[in-house]
Amino acid sequence: MIYCDIGNTSVDLFCEGNRTKLSVDLFDPAALQGEIYFVSVNGVFNERIKTFSHWHDLRELIDWKKYYPTMGIDRIMVCEAIEEGVIVDAGSAITVDVMSGGVYQGGFIALGVRAAQEAYARLSPALDVSFNFEVDLTIMAKNTPDALTVGFLAPLIHKIESLGKPIYLTGGDARLLSCFLTEAIVEEDLIFRGMKKLIEKGVKC
Amino acid sequence: MIYCDIGNTSVDLFCEGNRTKLSVDLFDPAALQGEIYFVSVNGVFNERIKTFSHWHDLRELIDWKKYYPTMGIDRIMVCEAIEEGVIVDAGSAITVDVMSGGVYQGGFIALGVRAAQEAYARLSPALDVSFNFEVDLTIMAKNTPDALTVGFLAPLIHKIESLGKPIYLTGGDARLLSCFLTEAIVEEDLIFRGMKKLIEKGVKC
Repeated sequence: MIYCDIGNTSVDLFCEGNRTKLSVDLFDPAALQGEIYFVSVNGVFNERIKTFSHWHDLRELIDWKKYYPTMGIDRIMVCEAIEEGVIVDAGSAITVDVMSGGVYQGGFIALGVRAAQEAYARLSPALDVSFNFEVDLTIMAKNTPDALTVGFLAPLIHKIESLGKPIYLTGGDARLLSCFLTEAIVEEDLIFRGMKKLIEKGVKC
Repeated sequence: MIYCDIGNTSVDLFCEGNRTKLSVDLFDPAALQGEIYFVSVNGVFNERIKTFSHWHDLRELIDWKKYYPTMGIDRIMVCEAIEEGVIVDAGSAITVDVMSGGVYQGGFIALGVRAAQEAYARLSPALDVSFNFEVDLTIMAKNTPDALTVGFLAPLIHKIESLGKPIYLTGGDARLLSCFLTEAIVEEDLIFRGMKKLIEKGVKC
């Protein structure tokens, strides 16, 4: 069984514990054998595979009453993986979602680390500096790189911790944020665990 | 006595309780009579007035040991106004600074409301939505506008409140943020109060 997360630029495959990331333009879905379970935000790709009977869209298994209609499919999948906790998916945006007893409680969306740095840089050349990821977020800053890093990360980290649940970190910046969320569990393949769990549950199969 | 805050695009004048904002390009500094005390981030404007003996740069009165070299002059002025408290200047960026017994404790810089909205919009068309300023920041969101508003504002408001001091709000978005910081004192002319206090103190006069 192959799990597949299709974005706008890349295809992320997960098979027997191994993960492979490919460019969506170079990927030929016809070449992939066996049963494939996927989530996709890519309408063009969806058109390419709609006649392939061995490609199964996990969107159809989701109990949408638990979530909300415009919620990203990746975000739903990481929520499906966790019964109780705060799930932080740190990518181009940082999504923060709360699960309690397997029930979705809601969440919020912060900017990703890179998006935030770029937004500061756009405000003023004086704010076009790199974050200092060794800064102590508990103290107020007295130089520009620290002031921006604390300004972006301290409120976010503080808010996530205040939710008072086990924290699960995933996404490209998971390791980076784990320096500040020292109690958090980093689980890079969380989306695939969510997909697997959803299939096993087979709500609407 | 006239107080003047010179930005890159506008000149903000304060005289006997009245405030006037003008375009920096249309403003003729030679036409202004009387003693003028100013702060400026505008190098071109500074060149225009450097031979005018009635224009006094407040930069020279600042005790720089209290602050840090790259700290914005506007930020220092609002700090000068307050002995004890958290000063939130909500403009294109949101600066948050802490004063304790008249001593600067440090601070941080968050993105401004508009900059944050624009940064979300750049990430994805799905995130190009207006904030919902009527949202309850204490609960997790279940729709996209609320998820972005909570994602940007809840951590920031929570962090500001956690600093445990009286909160002073100033800048263009002060009224907007005051809906969420209900205990805060909104003081739109705080920069001019800081300038006045600095002159009265006359540290290096």
